[in-house]
Amino acid sequence: VAHLVSSGGAPPPRPKSPDLPNAPSPQTAAPPEAPRSPPATAGSGSAAPAKTVEARASFSRPTFLQLSPGGLRRADDHAGRAVQSPPDTGRRLPWSTGYAEVINAGKSRHNEDQACCEVVYVEGRRSVSGAPREPSQGQGLCFYYWGLFDGHAGGGAAEMAARLLHRHIREQLKDLVEILQDPSPPPLCLPSTPGAPGSSDSSHLVGPQSCWSSQKEVTHESLVVGAIENAFQFMDEQMARERRGHQVEGGCCALVVVYLLGKVYVANAGDSRAIIVRNGEIIPMSREFTPETERQRLQLLGFLKPELLGGEFTHLEFPRRIQPKELGQRMLYRDQNMTGWAYKKIELEDLRFPLVCGEGKKARVMATIGVTRGLGDHNLKVCSSTLPIKPFLSCFPEVRVYDLTQYEHCPDDVLVLGTDGLWDVTSDCEVAATVDRVLSAYEPNDPSRYKALAQALVLGARGTPRDRGWRLPNNKLGSGDDISVFVIPLGGPGSYS
Amino acid sequence: VAHLVSSGGAPPPRPKSPDLPNAPSPQTAAPPEAPRSPPATAGSGSAAPAKTVEARASFSRPTFLQLSPGGLRRADDHAGRAVQSPPDTGRRLPWSTGYAEVINAGKSRHNEDQACCEVVYVEGRRSVSGAPREPSQGQGLCFYYWGLFDGHAGGGAAEMAARLLHRHIREQLKDLVEILQDPSPPPLCLPSTPGAPGSSDSSHLVGPQSCWSSQKEVTHESLVVGAIENAFQFMDEQMARERRGHQVEGGCCALVVVYLLGKVYVANAGDSRAIIVRNGEIIPMSREFTPETERQRLQLLGFLKPELLGGEFTHLEFPRRIQPKELGQRMLYRDQNMTGWAYKKIELEDLRFPLVCGEGKKARVMATIGVTRGLGDHNLKVCSSTLPIKPFLSCFPEVRVYDLTQYEHCPDDVLVLGTDGLWDVTSDCEVAATVDRVLSAYEPNDPSRYKALAQALVLGARGTPRDRGWRLPNNKLGSGDDISVFVIPLGGPGSYS
Repeated sequence: VAHLVSSGGAPPPRPKSPDLPNAPSPQTAAPPEAPRSPPATAGSGSAAPAKTVEARASFSRPTFLQLSPGGLRRADDHAGRAVQSPPDTGRRLPWSTGYAEVINAGKSRHNEDQACCEVVYVEGRRSVSGAPREPSQGQGLCFYYWGLFDGHAGGGAAEMAARLLHRHIREQLKDLVEILQDPSPPPLCLPSTPGAPGSSDSSHLVGPQSCWSSQKEVTHESLVVGAIENAFQFMDEQMARERRGHQVEGGCCALVVVYLLGKVYVANAGDSRAIIVRNGEIIPMSREFTPETERQRLQLLGFLKPELLGGEFTHLEFPRRIQPKELGQRMLYRDQNMTGWAYKKIELEDLRFPLVCGEGKKARVMATIGVTRGLGDHNLKVCSSTLPIKPFLSCFPEVRVYDLTQYEHCPDDVLVLGTDGLWDVTSDCEVAATVDRVLSAYEPNDPSRYKALAQALVLGARGTPRDRGWRLPNNKLGSGDDISVFVIPLGGPGSYS
Repeated sequence: VAHLVSSGGAPPPRPKSPDLPNAPSPQTAAPPEAPRSPPATAGSGSAAPAKTVEARASFSRPTFLQLSPGGLRRADDHAGRAVQSPPDTGRRLPWSTGYAEVINAGKSRHNEDQACCEVVYVEGRRSVSGAPREPSQGQGLCFYYWGLFDGHAGGGAAEMAARLLHRHIREQLKDLVEILQDPSPPPLCLPSTPGAPGSSDSSHLVGPQSCWSSQKEVTHESLVVGAIENAFQFMDEQMARERRGHQVEGGCCALVVVYLLGKVYVANAGDSRAIIVRNGEIIPMSREFTPETERQRLQLLGFLKPELLGGEFTHLEFPRRIQPKELGQRMLYRDQNMTGWAYKKIELEDLRFPLVCGEGKKARVMATIGVTRGLGDHNLKVCSSTLPIKPFLSCFPEVRVYDLTQYEHCPDDVLVLGTDGLWDVTSDCEVAATVDRVLSAYEPNDPSRYKALAQALVLGARGTPRDRGWRLPNNKLGSGDDISVFVIPLGGPGSYS
């Protein structure tokens, strides 16, 4: 993502990032005894194997790309910008997911996008108690997971998120394994000791009869949403804790899909985007969080906590920079309560730089960053200042839910995830047209069609070198940013649910 | 609006409310020289004439109802609940607008809804300078105005808003009279003295060439939105200033429509609702602001300014009240960042009352009020406490814009405004069905059809007395609240634009 005004030089070499505390042994593949049908294709982790630690220290790509040292060099070549996809010879990604990526045209030393695609098994926290269970209860849950992470100001945060965010989600879901498999409404209150045998039996619950007022009904779905939200927060906190010891530099947007128990959860924090293309129709599954879309939230925070502005910024927005000589004149402005504009007399403190300024891709918070949600950025300071920007950034995603069981999907129905490199130059409608064009050229049961589609989308956003730049067929400039795309078929997963 | 847990006894008698400062002489009727076609029907103010001051002190209804003392008594009768509409003998409301209202079933002494329908002429601030103008520039602007005000905890705020809010809007628009009639983009900066001759001529403007950065384009439409937003704020501030001297008790929701230069602006602060029914299709023109819809805004404020919670409330939401004996157990919760739910260990401060609790019509902020936006409420305290609630309430409306020129409207296309008394028991679809049923029973050019429709909507929400209550034909309970409805035809105003 090309968001930092001052991104500085090449990032320093990074040591191997730490693992998630309390989760040293990854359990990312579904065990054979999992009650839900295990996938025909195994998940492939994004963490590089130990022997490539040296390479990872300066540059890593998702392991499912299975890049050789030579392939890694080609993927890192800003001049060729070769589109990368998993090889046909290896194991397919779950659900025959298509993936393609390309490096930027030179704006940063390496590709700062990262990706992850996993099948994650969640073991219930209390299954270790050894208490006998009914077989129908099962012992765990399986979720499918896709993540795109668009880094800025260094690749460390994106790499760490790609390696660990799904484990934080697993951690949050551990408490819910039995609850989510029980059709009755979730208990509002649980005993204090999670490990106690039978502790979530309804007979042990604090019943509503002990309350003086009515109680809210909480759905299973909203528990999963809460788990994903908190996982983002724990991921961000881990980055904050470990930023010094491990040099987790920069930050990243995160766009994550979790498929669990028949529902697709799309969580977005940043300016990546997800859309479903279903029978030609476009269903937006995310929205972008930028200084423009989050202006009122940012201004409210600056208004309520003026110390965060450090006397350098004003929480008001003006349509352009004010000149000192304009003091006393009347200028258009907007505050945290307004969507319209009005005139105000210019006072001395209005000459401060506005907290939010600029338009479109040039919009910035504190003249520095162009996205307002994501992970990391704990060291980010205002240019030429010691003022921290992080308080204005939110690590919380917006989560949208799509019930896969409410519609009979065909093989041409897909969920498309892309970093802003795709969407900066490609509209939703153009993506839908490409979906139609590419998929109709393949047999419906050809699993390679989704990879071909991902490649076509990346190529269509990158363009070809012409007239000293990367250009699209219409001669407009292609994206010079890192571009990464997942194409997730929705007609396939029926066999997994 | 039935939102206050503790509404107390009958309100004290109120003196005549004050006028808007600096606007002593109302100019609400379009003068003959107005450049835009003046309406065939004159506007009718909501303020009662001077001779009924005594009646108004305890109870007033919109003057366009032209109620006699006997009629006023019948309108105030909780047992009969007669539907009130403007008489056929008087002047029609602008655009042949239909209006109907009915008093509540006894929840408050008087009908705390108020309404206003006006044609407002806005004279430019600088027309007094005497500088010659081109005739095409005109001298002022005319806007059409409809307002519904749903009071709570007394009728003072609603009455004051009905009498003055449109004048605040006029005040805010005065600076914009010439700018809005000039097709070029609005100037970003104006000289300091509004009264200076020719001061808004572009030759006197601070041009963009003096700026170091690009400038944002601001539309005429967003200036009108900003004017309405600020008018709400000035109205609220006036209530705060005058609450002691004039006993402006209570607060009110405000739903306001402004028609200006071809566009309909719908501004809503509270839980009234506006929908357009166009060719049978429903277009929502507002959303409701309640503790549930604004939970995250309220929680964020409580989190950032914990002193506003006074040690009595927690900003966290729980699905039910926590018992002290549950300390240490794990309970579902949501904070300001979450839309889903998660479990947390119950600590001592979680035993405080939640800032937001309850569901639907029973949802409350600080256990007291069920709407989160509106005017007034400056004296409102938490029940049995001195803690003020106002900081959590916002006076700012959400403004939606509908361009009347983008569609050829027929006489059956209407904008329906209703207080929550209507919407609590009537869905959007039921309203659309009533629109179709009633309007098709009248000739398209019969101006009384919109009044008949407003009456049908109020009657349909009130029901008839049966089984010791007001019941709908399906035997469900009708609304016991005050009910007020405007029906604004969209096919008619073409002649005014």
